Amino acid sequence: MRIMILGGDGYLGWPTAMYFSTRGHDVHVVDNFARRKADEELQADSLTPIRSLDERIHAWREVSGKEIRSAVGTLTDYEFISREMNEFRPETIIHYGELRSAPYSMIDREHAVYTQQNNITGNLNVLWAMADGLRECHLVKLGTMGEYGTPNIDIEEGYIDIEHKGRKDRLPFPKQPGSFYHLSKVADSNNIMFACKIWGIRATDLNQGVVYGVETDETKLDERLCTRLDYDAIWGTALNRFCIQAALGEPMTVYGKGGQTRGFLDIRDTLACVELATMNPADRGECRVFNQFTEQFSVLGLAEMVRDAAAKRDIKATIAHLDNPRVELEDHYFNAVHTKLLDLGLQPHFLSDTLVDSLLVTTETYATRARRETLLPDVNWRDASDAKAGAPVASKNGNQAPAAEMLVTEAEA
Amino acid sequence: MRIMILGGDGYLGWPTAMYFSTRGHDVHVVDNFARRKADEELQADSLTPIRSLDERIHAWREVSGKEIRSAVGTLTDYEFISREMNEFRPETIIHYGELRSAPYSMIDREHAVYTQQNNITGNLNVLWAMADGLRECHLVKLGTMGEYGTPNIDIEEGYIDIEHKGRKDRLPFPKQPGSFYHLSKVADSNNIMFACKIWGIRATDLNQGVVYGVETDETKLDERLCTRLDYDAIWGTALNRFCIQAALGEPMTVYGKGGQTRGFLDIRDTLACVELATMNPADRGECRVFNQFTEQFSVLGLAEMVRDAAAKRDIKATIAHLDNPRVELEDHYFNAVHTKLLDLGLQPHFLSDTLVDSLLVTTETYATRARRETLLPDVNWRDASDAKAGAPVASKNGNQAPAAEMLVTEAEA
Repeated sequence: MRIMILGGDGYLGWPTAMYFSTRGHDVHVVDNFARRKADEELQADSLTPIRSLDERIHAWREVSGKEIRSAVGTLTDYEFISREMNEFRPETIIHYGELRSAPYSMIDREHAVYTQQNNITGNLNVLWAMADGLRECHLVKLGTMGEYGTPNIDIEEGYIDIEHKGRKDRLPFPKQPGSFYHLSKVADSNNIMFACKIWGIRATDLNQGVVYGVETDETKLDERLCTRLDYDAIWGTALNRFCIQAALGEPMTVYGKGGQTRGFLDIRDTLACVELATMNPADRGECRVFNQFTEQFSVLGLAEMVRDAAAKRDIKATIAHLDNPRVELEDHYFNAVHTKLLDLGLQPHFLSDTLVDSLLVTTETYATRARRETLLPDVNWRDASDAKAGAPVASKNGNQAPAAEMLVTEAEA
Repeated sequence: MRIMILGGDGYLGWPTAMYFSTRGHDVHVVDNFARRKADEELQADSLTPIRSLDERIHAWREVSGKEIRSAVGTLTDYEFISREMNEFRPETIIHYGELRSAPYSMIDREHAVYTQQNNITGNLNVLWAMADGLRECHLVKLGTMGEYGTPNIDIEEGYIDIEHKGRKDRLPFPKQPGSFYHLSKVADSNNIMFACKIWGIRATDLNQGVVYGVETDETKLDERLCTRLDYDAIWGTALNRFCIQAALGEPMTVYGKGGQTRGFLDIRDTLACVELATMNPADRGECRVFNQFTEQFSVLGLAEMVRDAAAKRDIKATIAHLDNPRVELEDHYFNAVHTKLLDLGLQPHFLSDTLVDSLLVTTETYATRARRETLLPDVNWRDASDAKAGAPVASKNGNQAPAAEMLVTEAEA
């Protein structure tokens, strides 16, 4: 199958590219390196030393004998993306090509506007190019479980049957996104749903949970093929960050009480889910929604799990409850349906000591690369000052000082 | 009260500015003339000969002895709008400053992207400027009933109590917007709801129905004060367009069966509703949603009403059912709650022969200004070709020919 991977240089995009390449598909990666540029802007970096896209593709050719195509450009440039799509004529487009950080979108006005314009316009362009000549193509779009927020009812997969005043309808599940980033994803979902309706294109909207892990069958083949491992307060997802903090001897930073419950999944399950969606495409005109995660944990529960696993390696990990920089419930009901991917055959990798252990080992391997000053949250949802154009975030918010003052270790709390 | 009116040069914005000025408020109008520019682009025009904003303000000074301030600039320019807001320090911001046409947003990709970027970014900038130093200010934002679509259950005012699998919550009402324009308004609503939550600002989101009429107490005072009257297929709302078509002896263009039911209101009620929202502000942190319309009609029912009213003036008006250029249900349930503004004291002007009559008179007065070639729909929701940059819409879609072929008068149908 001809598969185009938007954002194919990213944390999930690159492993996805190799995964489909291994399985004999014709893979074409598109990326604008926005994520790498954000690292420069924020003075952050992947813990693992990732190679350039060219080097990765070269290494993959050496290791596997297979070719991954690539094009560098941005989805907000319609001339670029429509040309790439029309020339390659993908049967499936896997769309990871968006900014993906809630804190990044909350840094200041510019980052909020950039996140929403970049994600919404890029996605609109992809939809338009599909409608204008690629209506058989299947869009597999990465959304997030964070679109739903934390309603006091069970979260269904995209749609909910509502009975109201004696009448019934199946309607889009009401969403309560918790950052300008999450809001951009909701806007995407709505645009996709509408595009399916008016143009008869096919789409699968994957509301993905928080991904953890860094190893897949392909990344393990050669160090040059590794994917990024984020641990900083802007890009690092909870479990990855906790493992790294534990290994570095830094407190694991739990925001507020830590009762915030979310869906989680192993990076290998991301690949399996995307494959299941790809090989079982939506119908023409169908906007299918899957909730893509395998287990629910509270953030504190996760930190405790890492603490216990670390103890077995003689690492004494501590938990620090920070004043919550986000505006969110810290103690709430959360139960999200996630059966559609299981019905298609997903065999989950449940979180285990082994996985945590392997993350700790990875961290130790690269510990000297860690930038400890990026671990603490420096972006507060309640702030709303406008950054000066071009001012680096670090200098605006004073990356080092403020959050450290909020630190209260578990022992003290 | 210091009241800032964004989009204060538009169909509703200008009458709103005079309405509050009459009542002794300090009114500051902001506009970027996007609507006037779109007329040039589309070779359309208001039936009524509207004056420039400067002339309007001058005439208003002459007629009323009152001053309306103004500033010309765009909301997507944060430096501009934040400066205006910080200097004027409005207690209420009435936000009409968005592109407001579904067909316009569906012309091609560029217009879809322009509509979403302009509306979403402009609104984000206003929210940010409020959060950054104007947190007491009340945002009165114009949304649209079209955000809801046509669910098979009653439409509530912004939120719905859902009982699901034995649990309950009050959640945002699920929305099914029917154009890229309507989608931009949903994105606005979501951004506003979030901004209220994280920054504690106050907002009233007015989901307005289709507005008809052109006369208010203030516009009647002097011809130079009149507001625009749109009749073309891009900007003309249903009742206004039908009246003009009838007066011109053109068939009233009903899309499809005409069973599409919507909420409608008189322009004078728009002003009254906006005043009620302004004088009874939302609480800090509250995102209040009102459904702003007074009566429900089917599009065909409306055309029949105009036909009957026209007959009394010896005008034989005909109804033409066109192939529906939109993707929408033509026969559906529609019942929307709209009690909150009534509870605040709204005294509706219900649609009557008198109003239709006055619209017909206005039309006859300016009949020689009408451009008949703009009456027929030329934008099809199902099309998805990308326009060449800078190509006028008329030349792209061939404004004159295609829709005429679809014309079937009622007598023939």
